[in-house]
Amino acid sequence: MTKFDEATQAIRIDETTYDVCLDPGYSIGGPLNGGYLMAVVLRAVVDDSPFEHPVSTTSQFLKSPVPGPAQVRVERLKAGRTAAFTRATLVQDGVSQIESLVTTATLTGAEPLYSDKPAHVMPPPEECVKLPNPKPESNMTLNAQMELRFDPPTIAWLSGGPTGRPESRAYFRMTEPQDADPFVLALAVDALPPVVFSAGLRGWAPTVDLTWHLRALPAPGLLTLIGGGRLISDGWFDEEVEVWDSAGRLVAQSRQLARVGRG
Amino acid sequence: MTKFDEATQAIRIDETTYDVCLDPGYSIGGPLNGGYLMAVVLRAVVDDSPFEHPVSTTSQFLKSPVPGPAQVRVERLKAGRTAAFTRATLVQDGVSQIESLVTTATLTGAEPLYSDKPAHVMPPPEECVKLPNPKPESNMTLNAQMELRFDPPTIAWLSGGPTGRPESRAYFRMTEPQDADPFVLALAVDALPPVVFSAGLRGWAPTVDLTWHLRALPAPGLLTLIGGGRLISDGWFDEEVEVWDSAGRLVAQSRQLARVGRG
Repeated sequence: MTKFDEATQAIRIDETTYDVCLDPGYSIGGPLNGGYLMAVVLRAVVDDSPFEHPVSTTSQFLKSPVPGPAQVRVERLKAGRTAAFTRATLVQDGVSQIESLVTTATLTGAEPLYSDKPAHVMPPPEECVKLPNPKPESNMTLNAQMELRFDPPTIAWLSGGPTGRPESRAYFRMTEPQDADPFVLALAVDALPPVVFSAGLRGWAPTVDLTWHLRALPAPGLLTLIGGGRLISDGWFDEEVEVWDSAGRLVAQSRQLARVGRG
Repeated sequence: MTKFDEATQAIRIDETTYDVCLDPGYSIGGPLNGGYLMAVVLRAVVDDSPFEHPVSTTSQFLKSPVPGPAQVRVERLKAGRTAAFTRATLVQDGVSQIESLVTTATLTGAEPLYSDKPAHVMPPPEECVKLPNPKPESNMTLNAQMELRFDPPTIAWLSGGPTGRPESRAYFRMTEPQDADPFVLALAVDALPPVVFSAGLRGWAPTVDLTWHLRALPAPGLLTLIGGGRLISDGWFDEEVEVWDSAGRLVAQSRQLARVGRG
């Protein structure tokens, strides 16, 4: 069991309730990372489902839960022949923190009938760059859990030269060796810095809701995250991330709606 | 009040319940169109919200409700300063049919800070083609409610020549003159024939879940629907639709996960 497996563990205590313990190691400057929190919720949902894989997950981020004990309440809305529908709520101190709708099914790993290609060709990993380690006082503990190697132009905002477009692209793997699974993918779809940093914006950009689809089980090896956005308007932006595995397969697709930071 | 306004009316009967009447005029060969059903749900959610616009909607299609009376049950999960979160369930004969999570906010119509362009340039409307009227026995009553004019290659599957890629593009307007509003957009994001028809597939392709984001209030005039997909695999496909208004603004973005038909 890896540290990530442990940090996302969900222990059933009755028909509809799982105990979880939110780990301080997934903080992004205070709040816990949304992808990590979705992984925790999905552990409970998948355990409760007759199917193996969370093919679709939508989460609304109502509040920012703090590290420590919490519960996931699951309610099976329907279980059909090929898919089940579950409503799941992450609750802390009696208050709903995250509301999710999850569709589970069982993917077989069949060859795709059709697959498009990534919208961007990444340079090889050795030409990509790591971010400097965050200062301890920044409380960016998430950064230690994963290794991101960025396509250089998409991280140029750090040195003052944003590309002018919402974009962020990186290779991803867990720092502790672990083959990617659907829970790691939940983390991966929310692992990039906000795509709007590349468009010249800064500051805290809270996710309001995020939907992601698991499209295939990832092969072992590096994942590639291709992030972009279509519109920054009225204080809102969209962020889309595609996750491609080392075998060149599209394994996850996400879109989140987030608020533009004021910082 | 247009026929569409009437067909999506939701009348509050108590704190958490709205009465609706599902209209047989939105049938796609038997089942009612998912976009129409989302519009009905959103009428209730928006009426109940302190904010005006449904900026994010996710619906899980548990069952196929039939024309006739139904209820929408709304539960306000949180109302903050700039957004509210609502869970809504479409119930018929005591059985949940559609489960939704909706985020509402108020869009102001400010000029975008950044906007990408449509991925495809459409030919002018006069070079686009209408589908022949469906046979009455097909029970495709939806077709009479809206006018779609298709980018010719993306409808070539009808005459036996699919492009080999999941895609569908069309101009859209309501048959009864009506300026597009968020409820019309809910219909628009699910109005195209399944994008997989262009990839050579046929048959009933049921939507399992659909998430769409309202990004701006549409200007009067024709809407442009740009539909595509990234992967057809394991019996599932994704369908993304962008809706652009007559002023060239991105007004809605959707992604649905659907089952490949067997027909």
